[in-house]
Amino acid sequence: MADSSAPTRVMMAVNESSLKGYPHPSISCRSAFDWMLSKLVRSNTDGFHLLFLHVQVPDEDGFDDMDSIYASPTDFQSMKQRDRIRGIHLLEYFVNECHRLGIKCEAWTKQGDPKEVICHEVKRVQPDLLVVGSRGLGPFQRVFVGTVSEFCVKHAECPVITIKRKANEAPQDPIDD
Amino acid sequence: MADSSAPTRVMMAVNESSLKGYPHPSISCRSAFDWMLSKLVRSNTDGFHLLFLHVQVPDEDGFDDMDSIYASPTDFQSMKQRDRIRGIHLLEYFVNECHRLGIKCEAWTKQGDPKEVICHEVKRVQPDLLVVGSRGLGPFQRVFVGTVSEFCVKHAECPVITIKRKANEAPQDPIDD
Repeated sequence: MADSSAPTRVMMAVNESSLKGYPHPSISCRSAFDWMLSKLVRSNTDGFHLLFLHVQVPDEDGFDDMDSIYASPTDFQSMKQRDRIRGIHLLEYFVNECHRLGIKCEAWTKQGDPKEVICHEVKRVQPDLLVVGSRGLGPFQRVFVGTVSEFCVKHAECPVITIKRKANEAPQDPIDD
Repeated sequence: MADSSAPTRVMMAVNESSLKGYPHPSISCRSAFDWMLSKLVRSNTDGFHLLFLHVQVPDEDGFDDMDSIYASPTDFQSMKQRDRIRGIHLLEYFVNECHRLGIKCEAWTKQGDPKEVICHEVKRVQPDLLVVGSRGLGPFQRVFVGTVSEFCVKHAECPVITIKRKANEAPQDPIDD
Protein backbone atom coordinates (compact mmCIF):
# COMPACT_ATOMS: atom_id res chain seq x y z
CA MET A 1 0.00 0.00 0.00
CA ALA A 2 3.02 2.33 -0.32
CA ASP A 3 2.61 5.14 -2.79
CA SER A 4 5.87 4.37 -4.49
CA SER A 5 3.76 3.07 -7.36
CA ALA A 6 2.95 5.23 -10.39
CA PRO A 7 0.28 7.89 -9.75
CA THR A 8 -3.35 7.04 -10.52
CA ARG A 9 -4.10 8.55 -13.93
CA VAL A 10 -7.58 10.05 -13.92
CA MET A 11 -9.04 11.18 -17.22
CA MET A 12 -11.78 13.74 -17.07
CA ALA A 13 -14.04 14.77 -19.92
CA VAL A 14 -14.76 18.48 -19.64
CA ASN A 15 -17.10 20.70 -21.60
CA GLU A 16 -18.20 24.31 -21.82
CA SER A 17 -21.25 25.64 -20.09
CA SER A 18 -24.28 26.11 -22.31
CA LEU A 19 -25.17 29.25 -20.38
CA LYS A 20 -24.36 32.60 -21.95
CA GLY A 21 -21.30 34.57 -21.08
CA TYR A 22 -17.56 34.15 -21.19
CA PRO A 23 -16.54 30.52 -21.89
CA HIS A 24 -16.46 28.64 -18.62
CA PRO A 25 -16.81 24.97 -17.58
CA SER A 26 -20.28 23.46 -17.42
CA ILE A 27 -21.86 23.21 -13.97
CA SER A 28 -21.69 19.42 -14.00
CA CYS A 29 -18.03 19.14 -14.97
CA ARG A 30 -16.92 21.80 -12.50
CA SER A 31 -18.89 20.06 -9.79
CA ALA A 32 -17.38 16.68 -10.75
CA PHE A 33 -13.91 18.23 -10.66
CA ASP A 34 -14.44 19.71 -7.19
CA TRP A 35 -15.87 16.42 -5.94
CA MET A 36 -12.91 14.46 -7.27
CA LEU A 37 -10.42 16.79 -5.58
CA SER A 38 -12.10 16.75 -2.18
CA LYS A 39 -13.22 13.11 -2.11
CA LEU A 40 -10.62 11.15 -4.06
CA VAL A 41 -7.40 13.13 -4.37
CA ARG A 42 -7.77 14.67 -0.89
CA SER A 43 -4.32 15.54 0.48
CA ASN A 44 -2.62 12.90 -1.68
CA THR A 45 -1.73 15.31 -4.50
CA ASP A 46 1.33 13.29 -5.57
CA GLY A 47 -0.74 10.15 -5.97
CA PHE A 48 -2.82 11.44 -8.85
CA HIS A 49 -2.18 12.66 -12.37
CA LEU A 50 -5.13 14.37 -14.04
CA LEU A 51 -5.84 14.24 -17.75
CA PHE A 52 -8.37 16.72 -19.15
CA LEU A 53 -10.01 16.03 -22.48
CA HIS A 54 -12.29 18.54 -24.17
CA VAL A 55 -14.16 17.29 -27.20
CA GLN A 56 -15.30 20.05 -29.53
CA VAL A 57 -18.44 19.29 -31.50
CA PRO A 58 -18.05 21.02 -34.88
CA ASP A 59 -21.80 21.38 -35.58
CA GLU A 60 -22.70 22.49 -32.10
CA ASP A 61 -19.98 25.10 -32.03
CA GLY A 62 -21.23 26.39 -35.38
CA PHE A 63 -24.74 26.69 -33.99
CA ASP A 64 -23.81 29.80 -32.03
CA ASP A 65 -23.01 31.47 -35.31
CA MET A 66 -26.48 31.12 -36.82
CA ASP A 67 -26.72 34.88 -37.28
CA SER A 68 -23.25 35.32 -38.64
CA ILE A 69 -22.67 36.03 -42.32
CA TYR A 70 -19.94 34.09 -44.03
CA ALA A 71 -18.68 36.02 -47.00
CA SER A 72 -15.30 34.46 -47.52
CA PRO A 73 -13.19 31.43 -46.51
CA THR A 74 -11.47 33.69 -44.00
CA ASP A 75 -14.78 34.07 -42.11
CA PHE A 76 -14.91 30.31 -41.53
CA GLN A 77 -11.26 30.33 -40.67
CA SER A 78 -11.78 32.98 -38.01
CA MET A 79 -14.79 31.08 -36.62
CA LYS A 80 -12.70 27.92 -36.27
CA GLN A 81 -9.96 29.97 -34.71
CA ARG A 82 -12.47 31.38 -32.20
CA ASP A 83 -13.72 27.88 -31.30
CA ARG A 84 -10.20 26.72 -30.80
CA ILE A 85 -9.52 29.62 -28.45
CA ARG A 86 -12.69 28.92 -26.44
CA GLY A 87 -11.57 25.30 -26.00
CA ILE A 88 -8.17 26.43 -24.81
CA HIS A 89 -9.73 28.85 -22.33
CA LEU A 90 -11.81 26.02 -20.93
CA LEU A 91 -8.79 23.78 -20.38
CA GLU A 92 -6.88 26.72 -18.90
CA TYR A 93 -9.35 26.78 -16.00
CA PHE A 94 -8.57 23.19 -15.00
CA VAL A 95 -4.84 23.40 -15.61
CA ASN A 96 -4.64 26.56 -13.48
CA GLU A 97 -6.53 24.90 -10.65
CA CYS A 98 -4.24 21.86 -10.72
CA HIS A 99 -1.18 24.07 -10.82
CA ARG A 100 -2.45 26.01 -7.80
CA LEU A 101 -2.97 22.75 -5.87
CA GLY A 102 0.27 21.13 -6.99
CA ILE A 103 -1.34 18.29 -8.95
CA LYS A 104 0.30 17.15 -12.16
CA CYS A 105 -1.93 17.36 -15.20
CA GLU A 106 -2.22 17.34 -18.97
CA ALA A 107 -4.98 18.75 -21.15
CA TRP A 108 -5.90 18.48 -24.80
CA THR A 109 -8.78 18.96 -27.22
CA LYS A 110 -10.21 16.67 -29.90
CA GLN A 111 -13.00 17.17 -32.41
CA GLY A 112 -15.91 14.81 -32.98
CA ASP A 113 -18.80 13.07 -31.26
CA PRO A 114 -17.98 13.35 -27.52
CA LYS A 115 -18.99 9.82 -26.47
CA GLU A 116 -17.09 8.17 -29.32
CA VAL A 117 -14.04 10.38 -28.93
CA ILE A 118 -13.92 9.90 -25.13
CA CYS A 119 -13.97 6.10 -25.46
CA HIS A 120 -11.40 6.26 -28.24
CA GLU A 121 -9.11 8.40 -26.11
CA VAL A 122 -9.51 6.01 -23.17
CA LYS A 123 -8.31 3.23 -25.45
CA ARG A 124 -5.37 5.30 -26.63
CA VAL A 125 -4.30 6.90 -23.31
CA GLN A 126 -5.28 4.02 -20.98
CA PRO A 127 -6.11 5.99 -17.83
CA ASP A 128 -6.88 4.17 -14.57
CA LEU A 129 -10.21 5.93 -14.23
CA LEU A 130 -12.56 8.03 -16.35
CA VAL A 131 -14.63 10.74 -14.65
CA VAL A 132 -17.76 12.02 -16.36
CA GLY A 133 -20.20 14.54 -14.99
CA SER A 134 -23.85 14.41 -15.92
CA ARG A 135 -26.92 16.62 -15.57
CA GLY A 136 -29.70 15.73 -13.16
CA LEU A 137 -33.33 16.65 -13.08
CA GLY A 138 -35.21 18.35 -10.20
CA PRO A 139 -35.38 16.98 -6.63
CA PHE A 140 -38.65 15.12 -7.05
CA GLN A 141 -37.91 13.62 -10.45
CA ARG A 142 -36.05 10.41 -11.12
CA VAL A 143 -32.41 11.22 -11.70
CA PHE A 144 -31.46 11.33 -15.37
CA VAL A 145 -28.10 10.31 -16.73
CA GLY A 146 -27.13 11.80 -20.08
CA THR A 147 -26.28 9.69 -23.07
CA VAL A 148 -22.58 10.55 -23.01
CA SER A 149 -22.02 9.23 -19.49
CA GLU A 150 -24.26 6.22 -20.07
CA PHE A 151 -22.35 5.32 -23.23
CA CYS A 152 -18.98 5.71 -21.47
CA VAL A 153 -20.00 3.50 -18.54
CA LYS A 154 -20.87 0.76 -21.02
CA HIS A 155 -18.08 1.10 -23.52
CA ALA A 156 -15.02 2.78 -22.01
CA GLU A 157 -12.24 0.29 -21.37
CA CYS A 158 -11.53 1.44 -17.81
CA PRO A 159 -13.50 2.00 -14.59
CA VAL A 160 -15.88 4.96 -14.97
CA ILE A 161 -17.22 7.25 -12.31
CA THR A 162 -20.44 9.11 -13.01
CA ILE A 163 -21.09 12.22 -10.97
CA LYS A 164 -24.54 13.67 -11.21
CA ARG A 165 -25.14 17.38 -10.87
CA LYS A 166 -26.85 18.21 -7.58
CA ALA A 167 -30.46 19.33 -7.78
CA ASN A 168 -29.66 22.64 -6.12
CA GLU A 169 -26.98 23.36 -8.73
CA ALA A 170 -29.34 23.00 -11.69
CA PRO A 171 -30.02 26.17 -13.68
CA GLN A 172 -33.54 27.42 -14.43
CA ASP A 173 -33.73 25.20 -17.51
CA PRO A 174 -32.29 21.80 -16.51
CA ILE A 175 -31.25 21.19 -20.11
CA ASP A 176 -28.66 23.92 -19.60
CA ASP A 177 -25.47 23.03 -17.79
CA MET B 1 -6.74 20.32 0.42
CA ALA B 2 -5.70 19.27 3.91
CA ASP B 3 -7.01 15.90 5.02
CA SER B 4 -8.33 17.29 8.24
CA SER B 5 -11.78 16.84 6.72
CA ALA B 6 -13.88 13.75 7.43
CA PRO B 7 -12.74 10.60 5.59
CA THR B 8 -14.33 9.80 2.23
CA ARG B 9 -17.02 7.22 2.89
CA VAL B 10 -17.00 4.62 0.14
CA MET B 11 -19.86 2.13 0.04
CA MET B 12 -19.20 -1.10 -1.80
CA ALA B 13 -21.81 -3.64 -2.78
CA VAL B 14 -20.30 -7.11 -2.45
CA ASN B 15 -21.66 -10.50 -3.42
CA GLU B 16 -20.71 -14.14 -3.31
CA SER B 17 -19.12 -15.96 -6.20
CA SER B 18 -21.47 -18.13 -8.24
CA LEU B 19 -18.68 -20.67 -8.68
CA LYS B 20 -18.75 -23.77 -6.53
CA GLY B 21 -16.73 -24.14 -3.39
CA TYR B 22 -16.42 -22.44 -0.06
CA PRO B 23 -18.23 -19.08 0.01
CA HIS B 24 -15.92 -16.45 -1.35
CA PRO B 25 -16.38 -13.04 -3.00
CA SER B 26 -17.31 -12.90 -6.67
CA ILE B 27 -14.50 -12.26 -9.13
CA SER B 28 -15.89 -8.85 -10.08
CA CYS B 29 -16.30 -7.55 -6.54
CA ARG B 30 -12.89 -8.79 -5.41
CA SER B 31 -11.35 -7.17 -8.47
CA ALA B 32 -13.24 -3.91 -7.80
CA PHE B 33 -12.02 -3.98 -4.18
CA ASP B 34 -8.38 -4.48 -5.19
CA TRP B 35 -8.67 -1.74 -7.80
CA MET B 36 -10.14 0.68 -5.28
CA LEU B 37 -7.34 0.02 -2.78
CA SER B 38 -4.51 0.42 -5.26
CA LYS B 39 -5.94 3.26 -7.36
CA LEU B 40 -8.05 5.37 -5.01
CA VAL B 41 -7.10 4.73 -1.41
CA ARG B 42 -3.40 4.22 -2.25
CA SER B 43 -1.28 5.11 0.81
CA ASN B 44 -3.97 7.45 2.17
CA THR B 45 -5.53 4.84 4.46
CA ASP B 46 -6.75 7.44 6.97
CA GLY B 47 -8.61 9.35 4.29
CA PHE B 48 -11.10 6.59 3.54
CA HIS B 49 -13.78 4.74 5.43
CA LEU B 50 -15.15 1.66 3.68
CA LEU B 51 -18.73 0.44 4.01
CA PHE B 52 -19.50 -3.08 2.77
CA LEU B 53 -23.05 -4.04 1.98
CA HIS B 54 -24.05 -7.58 1.08
CA VAL B 55 -27.58 -8.03 -0.20
CA GLN B 56 -28.88 -11.57 0.20
CA VAL B 57 -31.45 -12.62 -2.37
CA PRO B 58 -33.87 -14.97 -0.59
CA ASP B 59 -34.96 -16.87 -3.75
CA GLU B 60 -31.50 -17.14 -5.20
CA ASP B 61 -30.04 -18.45 -1.97
CA GLY B 62 -32.83 -21.03 -1.84
CA PHE B 63 -31.98 -22.14 -5.36
CA ASP B 64 -28.90 -23.99 -4.13
CA ASP B 65 -31.19 -26.11 -2.02
CA MET B 66 -33.22 -27.54 -4.91
CA ASP B 67 -32.28 -31.05 -3.90
CA SER B 68 -32.84 -30.56 -0.20
CA ILE B 69 -35.86 -32.04 1.51
CA TYR B 70 -37.73 -29.83 3.91
CA ALA B 71 -39.62 -31.92 6.40
CA SER B 72 -40.14 -29.44 9.19
CA PRO B 73 -39.98 -25.71 9.98
CA THR B 74 -36.59 -26.34 11.54
CA ASP B 75 -35.23 -27.35 8.12
CA PHE B 76 -36.09 -23.91 6.75
CA GLN B 77 -34.73 -22.35 9.87
CA SER B 78 -31.40 -24.13 9.45
CA MET B 79 -31.28 -23.14 5.77
CA LYS B 80 -31.79 -19.50 6.68
CA GLN B 81 -29.17 -19.86 9.35
CA ARG B 82 -26.75 -21.31 6.78
CA ASP B 83 -27.39 -18.41 4.37
CA ARG B 84 -26.80 -15.95 7.15
CA ILE B 85 -23.48 -17.61 7.97
CA ARG B 86 -22.41 -17.56 4.30
CA GLY B 87 -23.13 -13.81 4.19
CA ILE B 88 -21.10 -13.23 7.31
CA HIS B 89 -18.19 -15.24 5.90
CA LEU B 90 -18.27 -13.08 2.79
CA LEU B 91 -18.10 -9.85 4.77
CA GLU B 92 -15.37 -11.31 6.96
CA TYR B 93 -13.08 -11.44 3.92
CA PHE B 94 -13.35 -7.69 3.33
CA VAL B 95 -13.26 -6.69 6.98
CA ASN B 96 -10.12 -8.80 7.50
CA GLU B 97 -8.42 -7.20 4.50
CA CYS B 98 -9.24 -3.69 5.75
CA HIS B 99 -8.03 -4.55 9.23
CA ARG B 100 -4.76 -5.85 7.79
CA LEU B 101 -4.26 -2.60 5.85
CA GLY B 102 -5.38 -0.30 8.66
CA ILE B 103 -8.46 1.05 6.90
CA LYS B 104 -11.58 1.73 8.95
CA CYS B 105 -14.62 -0.16 7.79
CA GLU B 106 -18.13 -1.33 8.55
CA ALA B 107 -20.06 -4.22 7.02
CA TRP B 108 -23.66 -5.37 7.09
CA THR B 109 -26.15 -7.55 5.24
CA LYS B 110 -29.67 -6.84 3.99
CA GLN B 111 -32.21 -9.00 2.27
CA GLY B 112 -34.05 -8.16 -0.93
CA ASP B 113 -33.58 -7.18 -4.56
CA PRO B 114 -29.92 -6.04 -4.75
CA LYS B 115 -30.40 -3.00 -6.98
CA GLU B 116 -33.31 -1.66 -4.94
CA VAL B 117 -31.66 -2.38 -1.59
CA ILE B 118 -28.35 -0.82 -2.66
CA CYS B 119 -30.05 2.43 -3.72
CA HIS B 120 -32.13 2.43 -0.57
CA GLU B 121 -29.04 1.97 1.58
CA VAL B 122 -27.28 4.79 -0.28
CA LYS B 123 -30.19 7.05 0.61
CA ARG B 124 -30.04 5.95 4.24
CA VAL B 125 -26.26 5.87 4.79
CA GLN B 126 -25.34 8.74 2.44
CA PRO B 127 -21.86 7.61 1.39
CA ASP B 128 -19.65 9.88 -0.73
CA LEU B 129 -19.21 7.21 -3.37
CA LEU B 130 -20.75 3.88 -4.34
CA VAL B 131 -18.53 1.22 -5.92
CA VAL B 132 -20.12 -1.55 -7.96
CA GLY B 133 -18.31 -4.27 -9.84
CA SER B 134 -19.79 -5.77 -12.98
CA ARG B 135 -19.15 -8.74 -15.24
CA GLY B 136 -17.69 -8.25 -18.70
CA LEU B 137 -17.81 -10.38 -21.81
CA GLY B 138 -14.86 -11.74 -23.81
CA PRO B 139 -12.10 -9.58 -25.31
CA PHE B 140 -13.68 -9.23 -28.76
CA GLN B 141 -17.20 -8.62 -27.59
CA ARG B 142 -18.69 -5.28 -26.62
CA VAL B 143 -18.36 -4.82 -22.88
CA PHE B 144 -21.52 -5.62 -20.99
CA VAL B 145 -22.68 -3.89 -17.84
CA GLY B 146 -25.07 -5.82 -15.63
CA THR B 147 -28.46 -4.53 -14.65
CA VAL B 148 -27.52 -3.93 -11.00
CA SER B 149 -24.68 -1.55 -11.82
CA GLU B 150 -26.66 0.14 -14.59
CA PHE B 151 -29.60 0.71 -12.24
CA CYS B 152 -27.32 2.10 -9.52
CA VAL B 153 -25.59 4.53 -11.89
CA LYS B 154 -29.00 5.92 -12.82
CA HIS B 155 -30.73 5.92 -9.47
CA ALA B 156 -28.25 5.98 -6.59
CA GLU B 157 -28.13 9.39 -4.94
CA CYS B 158 -24.35 9.66 -4.91
CA PRO B 159 -21.51 9.37 -7.44
CA VAL B 160 -21.13 5.79 -8.66
CA ILE B 161 -18.07 4.02 -9.96
CA THR B 162 -18.54 1.00 -12.18
CA ILE B 163 -15.62 -1.39 -12.42
CA LYS B 164 -15.86 -4.00 -15.11
CA ARG B 165 -14.29 -7.41 -14.67
CA LYS B 166 -11.25 -7.78 -16.89
CA ALA B 167 -11.58 -10.15 -19.83
CA ASN B 168 -8.73 -12.33 -18.57
CA GLU B 169 -10.45 -12.74 -15.20
CA ALA B 170 -13.66 -14.13 -16.67
CA PRO B 171 -14.43 -17.76 -15.84
CA GLN B 172 -15.21 -20.36 -18.53
CA ASP B 173 -18.87 -19.37 -18.47
CA PRO B 174 -18.98 -15.54 -18.42
CA ILE B 175 -22.35 -15.67 -16.67
CA ASP B 176 -20.46 -17.00 -13.63
CA ASP B 177 -18.65 -14.53 -11.46
